[in-house]
Amino acid sequence: VTEADLIDRFTRRAPRAGEGVVLGIGDDAALLAPPRGELLVATVDAVVEGVHFDARFAPADVGWKALAVNLSDLAGMAARPLWALCALTVPRGADARRLAAVGDGLAACARRHGVALAGGNVSAAAELSLTVTVVGAVRPGRALTRAGARPGDVVLVSGTLGDAALGLEPGAPAAATRRQRRPVPRLALGRSLGGLASAGMDLSDGLLLDLSRLCEASGVGARIALEALPRSAAHLRATRGRADPWALAAGGGEDYELLVTVPPARLARAHAAARRARVPLTPIGFVVRGRGVDARLPGGARHAGGAGHDHLAPQRGAPRF
Amino acid sequence: VTEADLIDRFTRRAPRAGEGVVLGIGDDAALLAPPRGELLVATVDAVVEGVHFDARFAPADVGWKALAVNLSDLAGMAARPLWALCALTVPRGADARRLAAVGDGLAACARRHGVALAGGNVSAAAELSLTVTVVGAVRPGRALTRAGARPGDVVLVSGTLGDAALGLEPGAPAAATRRQRRPVPRLALGRSLGGLASAGMDLSDGLLLDLSRLCEASGVGARIALEALPRSAAHLRATRGRADPWALAAGGGEDYELLVTVPPARLARAHAAARRARVPLTPIGFVVRGRGVDARLPGGARHAGGAGHDHLAPQRGAPRF
Repeated sequence: VTEADLIDRFTRRAPRAGEGVVLGIGDDAALLAPPRGELLVATVDAVVEGVHFDARFAPADVGWKALAVNLSDLAGMAARPLWALCALTVPRGADARRLAAVGDGLAACARRHGVALAGGNVSAAAELSLTVTVVGAVRPGRALTRAGARPGDVVLVSGTLGDAALGLEPGAPAAATRRQRRPVPRLALGRSLGGLASAGMDLSDGLLLDLSRLCEASGVGARIALEALPRSAAHLRATRGRADPWALAAGGGEDYELLVTVPPARLARAHAAARRARVPLTPIGFVVRGRGVDARLPGGARHAGGAGHDHLAPQRGAPRF
Repeated sequence: VTEADLIDRFTRRAPRAGEGVVLGIGDDAALLAPPRGELLVATVDAVVEGVHFDARFAPADVGWKALAVNLSDLAGMAARPLWALCALTVPRGADARRLAAVGDGLAACARRHGVALAGGNVSAAAELSLTVTVVGAVRPGRALTRAGARPGDVVLVSGTLGDAALGLEPGAPAAATRRQRRPVPRLALGRSLGGLASAGMDLSDGLLLDLSRLCEASGVGARIALEALPRSAAHLRATRGRADPWALAAGGGEDYELLVTVPPARLARAHAAARRARVPLTPIGFVVRGRGVDARLPGGARHAGGAGHDHLAPQRGAPRF
């Protein structure tokens, strides 16, 4: 397969036009008209074969996930997505049909969330990888950042936790496997929470680690109850009887849910926003003075489970700087 | 080395603040204020160990080049650069000091060209790679694209051609090696030509191939004289006596010079712009009706040398889509 042929196949179903796309795929760079009166929100994330996905992923899952994990970052900032650029690395001898299917998965996620593929690049490499840059927009003052949480704010998470991590285990239930391979970014909920939450982020590296990052950025601590963590029926069934049934929900990565802190006076509006977005939003604790995350077991004892992904080890999740 | 430590070291010298950077490195995404009244120009490119660089590159050269090749795309669009995002992949066991030096090279290029590093990402992978996204700005109507060349326009290139390709040969002169490892994007010249040239692009995959792309996008042909191709003194010396002394200048990649077409009435202004930017700008031929690039040898015979990089082979240059 030639390079031009590969690009054609990879992008065959991708939406190339969209809001602000003046000149898309095909020139040295894309020309994009930024929306008036909004800030841009930009992030980049890579999915690498053997690190973020393996042979159990369908090719379309790989493409979907490469874009979805970036859109989750935009959701965590309360932004709406506009444009994506995709840098693809391809091992020599790669199967052109497989690459087309990867592109189709990315295209499906892009169409679903109204993102235009505005540009990209293809290089040879030892393994398949997709490095996706997404740019979105948010009105000034509506962006959610990790800083801003205040003592007394309620800590909430969207959806359910631990399913994606469970999805990596042998014999995992299909619902968990799907959460691992086809994460759904919480864009609508994120935008609704933009004017309500005091701080927020998406959960990619495990609740305890991500919450500790939010606390550090806000200069506060948090106290959470593990029994409050929302877990799916499949997750509850699969982890029943384990020594630490909260391990995956508290420490597993790739949830791609939202973590927000909301002042008590705005809690009712936050819950109303979640109902409109049809995503559960569950209080799991409070912001407190001090530092660090104090996670409590049902009896009141401190949870011993540490959280700390080193992303240079071959596992899921990808840190951002 | 931990991931947080690596990020700190990689970004230690990078300019984090800059025009429009509202919130930079450290959150889920960067918050960026687009300049009023301008279009954004966005592109992505990767440099991969063993494909785009090897052990002969100093670590700082790798970082420099990863950003410079992207800035060259902005130059080819007549844009000024604003922000960069860098996705880094790192093999396990990588030397932290080497990675810091790679980051220092990227930082040096960013400082030199007024680019803020607004975000990034680090993942494990089999080899070291840097995938850099850059976003710049250009006034509407000033952007150079590949479309727009008209029969009768003059074809010009900046600087000298073939040095970077020569720089890959064993025993290459130091000047050529430097062109290979430390390309200098022609940003000032590109911006000056934005209002003058009818079409333009940067040269990354060899003059003949890139010119054929410009011609295709413009729906025209081109006729060029190989003896007109600007070659450096070192290049002339090194290629004297070769069967095809124009091979590297016509077909070698990674020149990172500008290729533009200029209507004859604006030629004097284009040359004045080049003098101000202190970069040579050399006419090499004309745009003609028809299709394809007709490259002529000094005696008038057609040049047989084909140009056609397949970027999935392990060689330099990286195609953009």
